[in-house]
Amino acid sequence: MGQVFAQETVNLEMMHRIKNEGMRNSQIQDLSFHLTDFLGPRLSGSTNLRNARNWTAEKFKEWGLSNVKIDTYGEFGRGWDVKKAYIAMKEPYYAQIIGYPKAWTDGTNGLVSDEVMLIEISSDADFDKYRGKLKGKVVMTPANLTVNPAFEAEARRWTDEELENRKTIPVGNMPSRWTPEQMAQMRTARELDAKLNAFLLEEQVGLRLTGTRGSFGTVFHTRSGSFSTDKKVTVPEMEIAAEHYGRIYRLIKNGKKVSIEAEIDVQWLDDDYAGYNVIAEIPGTDRTLKPEIVMLGGHLDSWHAGTGANDNAAGVVVMMEAIRILKALDVQPKRTIRIALWGEEEQGLYGSRGYVQKYVADRATKEKKGEWDKISAYYNLDNGSGKIRGIYLEGNDMLVPIFEKWFEPFHEMGANTITRRSTGSTDHVAFDAVGVPGFQFIQDPIDYGKGYHTNMDVYERMQFGDMTQAAIIIAAMVYNTSERAEKLPRKPW
Amino acid sequence: MGQVFAQETVNLEMMHRIKNEGMRNSQIQDLSFHLTDFLGPRLSGSTNLRNARNWTAEKFKEWGLSNVKIDTYGEFGRGWDVKKAYIAMKEPYYAQIIGYPKAWTDGTNGLVSDEVMLIEISSDADFDKYRGKLKGKVVMTPANLTVNPAFEAEARRWTDEELENRKTIPVGNMPSRWTPEQMAQMRTARELDAKLNAFLLEEQVGLRLTGTRGSFGTVFHTRSGSFSTDKKVTVPEMEIAAEHYGRIYRLIKNGKKVSIEAEIDVQWLDDDYAGYNVIAEIPGTDRTLKPEIVMLGGHLDSWHAGTGANDNAAGVVVMMEAIRILKALDVQPKRTIRIALWGEEEQGLYGSRGYVQKYVADRATKEKKGEWDKISAYYNLDNGSGKIRGIYLEGNDMLVPIFEKWFEPFHEMGANTITRRSTGSTDHVAFDAVGVPGFQFIQDPIDYGKGYHTNMDVYERMQFGDMTQAAIIIAAMVYNTSERAEKLPRKPW
Repeated sequence: MGQVFAQETVNLEMMHRIKNEGMRNSQIQDLSFHLTDFLGPRLSGSTNLRNARNWTAEKFKEWGLSNVKIDTYGEFGRGWDVKKAYIAMKEPYYAQIIGYPKAWTDGTNGLVSDEVMLIEISSDADFDKYRGKLKGKVVMTPANLTVNPAFEAEARRWTDEELENRKTIPVGNMPSRWTPEQMAQMRTARELDAKLNAFLLEEQVGLRLTGTRGSFGTVFHTRSGSFSTDKKVTVPEMEIAAEHYGRIYRLIKNGKKVSIEAEIDVQWLDDDYAGYNVIAEIPGTDRTLKPEIVMLGGHLDSWHAGTGANDNAAGVVVMMEAIRILKALDVQPKRTIRIALWGEEEQGLYGSRGYVQKYVADRATKEKKGEWDKISAYYNLDNGSGKIRGIYLEGNDMLVPIFEKWFEPFHEMGANTITRRSTGSTDHVAFDAVGVPGFQFIQDPIDYGKGYHTNMDVYERMQFGDMTQAAIIIAAMVYNTSERAEKLPRKPW
Repeated sequence: MGQVFAQETVNLEMMHRIKNEGMRNSQIQDLSFHLTDFLGPRLSGSTNLRNARNWTAEKFKEWGLSNVKIDTYGEFGRGWDVKKAYIAMKEPYYAQIIGYPKAWTDGTNGLVSDEVMLIEISSDADFDKYRGKLKGKVVMTPANLTVNPAFEAEARRWTDEELENRKTIPVGNMPSRWTPEQMAQMRTARELDAKLNAFLLEEQVGLRLTGTRGSFGTVFHTRSGSFSTDKKVTVPEMEIAAEHYGRIYRLIKNGKKVSIEAEIDVQWLDDDYAGYNVIAEIPGTDRTLKPEIVMLGGHLDSWHAGTGANDNAAGVVVMMEAIRILKALDVQPKRTIRIALWGEEEQGLYGSRGYVQKYVADRATKEKKGEWDKISAYYNLDNGSGKIRGIYLEGNDMLVPIFEKWFEPFHEMGANTITRRSTGSTDHVAFDAVGVPGFQFIQDPIDYGKGYHTNMDVYERMQFGDMTQAAIIIAAMVYNTSERAEKLPRKPW
């Protein structure tokens, strides 16, 4: 047993107090209601996200946190709000369609009512078949959407065996998922798709219908338009439920006429192109360690057709609750504790990367900035509302004995897996990329994969019991990091 | 081994030919497309159901079936088509809502745009709080809709053990599901609900929002309005997704203002109140047995927001395919084979009961009519598109050795469970009720329970491989019944 391990101590009385505060005075459910039902979907740049920044900042002030600010990291792009969206089939009979405008798509200028044209492009030559014929038309392109019955449970928790497996790390080169031939085919398809997008725009198509994965009324969604400030106009585009897409597609392929009526009304917001993070602190109290920082956070933005509940109101609520617990306990931390609610994560980690670029380090030039050697750790939550089962160490071997010790008081809550593995796609990578310890926790998946990035990522998806556990553990991790004699050991950068 | 069993013979060459025709020339997928995507939802009395009657009758003629007719059994009621339906939340922010008009609800006379009022009635005294205040308003009533993650698979097939269990029959009185206290509470709640419905109508409410079970965008639905020919006006009512209902409810309960905009436009059909069944035959060829009849069928009508795929386009398609197989094989049956596609099953077995009343027997007076001693058996399919695993005998012990023999050639297709048990709620009970053998098969559930009576009961739910098996087995059962020396043995009536 090495010296590092021997040094680690855990203030068990504080762990006990954190558990009590988290269990007895939990604000999880009320915060969840406000972040989802009340504030609504929080697409980057949208009015709702602006409201969410203000609301969370006010809540931090109400709790007595310090240095609360809505902090810009630079430019993001245009805001976009949906003012109205409607789509239905008119022929061969009237039928409502579940469909949503893709993010940043343009409006239709009123109700469009027209036959649906199926555009089948498999080579460059196919464009000529349609050239000059699509102005104002409703079009759809083929999609291969397979919908199968769910013979396996759609929600689950990690088993002990699966958690144990998450500790193993593959050694050696991973085989490529694709053959060179497959990769060439995919490249060709992508190029053709880009040409198709340009063609539809040039032809001034009135509305494009796209199918999405998901089934039974759940619609996954993305963006088609652009938030770029050059104000490029995009074709109005709606993503519709796989089954409704399939119905229209099959009818047309069988020679039946399909007509639809649809309307998209959007509002562009061009008064402020900046991106923002919401920041608040519990100032450190140790004369020496006070300038050092322990960070926790999650992204405040979401996609637009649900209310961004599991992705990522859940992470925001848990992190807010964690800092609320520490503030309520008046912990007087040695280091400063700082929460950050990131903007624009869904469009490419803008908020966290912008913060890192502004305050921590330049990833490209390796230039270190003021906070680079101040931040001990950044803790992130962004894998839904499932409880914490452990933590990914991003390959940092030196942390194993520390975190093993820190997790001990939470074994009975189901959290005991310390893995050297890395995990991707959340805001912690912005910190890890510049050598500052950044972490995402191992969370039970529940039905995260079924609902995230869909119209059904809403309040009902959130597991409040799980989130209560997560807030307690994160409060503990943040507290331990703030009190530790040294900052957490780092990988070389 | 008794004499009855010894008498049963199966024409294995014909079984082989039926399997071949069903497997090689299956029309299952094309019929399924037409019954769902093309014809659309087929609510009792609707234009789509009229189209479906005509289309299936034409298909029977095309196949060369005899005595094809669209046969009225008497009056059903008013037809009702949805011409437009739209609903969205306007405040605190714009959000699309998944919602459907309840069947036979009235229209809104254009776009309604108003704050949602929560009406909480727990006793007679509560009505006074709202009297005179609801004219033209949008109201909702509390609902207790719990949405949980699906930790168990939502689709499944019967295991061998479960099938074996289906053979057992409980002996003795079943305990009541409810205590007398619970039953009294339920009665009081029902009475209060009836008063509420009358109150809202009297107050001329503009639109009522109701939550439904289902989740993730799947909406179960029912009727609120009436198809009765007294043309009673009903309050416009929409059933909305549980999560969207929950959002509005929680916002109001937390003191936030919610406004919505919605529109329902409906068309009432008052030109024909009759109900109909579609009938077609392969005439019998045996001089003596030709007047006797073997019947097969399923209900053609459905609910209105999906396309009535598993309930019950599936049953219709399988039965159509079964008779197509027999016609294609030119089987020259001894007895007449008659298919019936019933109308108005979802509103209370109108079509099959109407047929029985007209041609078979009067259930109340026990008066026997012309077909009572002619019909050997009626086979029904109405439990989705899952394959056949066996058959319910409705307590008819005498059939065990017969059906055991007839199922033998299909054991390898998964069908080998003959249970004396009864099953309810499908058109076979109309025949069983007057002592004529009527049967529903044991079918694999797949995800029937998740999708039936919902907006998502559509083409994608149908399992074509399963339906192919079912059509083969039913063709065989019908053939065996037509060729048997005697009609099937009956229970006393």
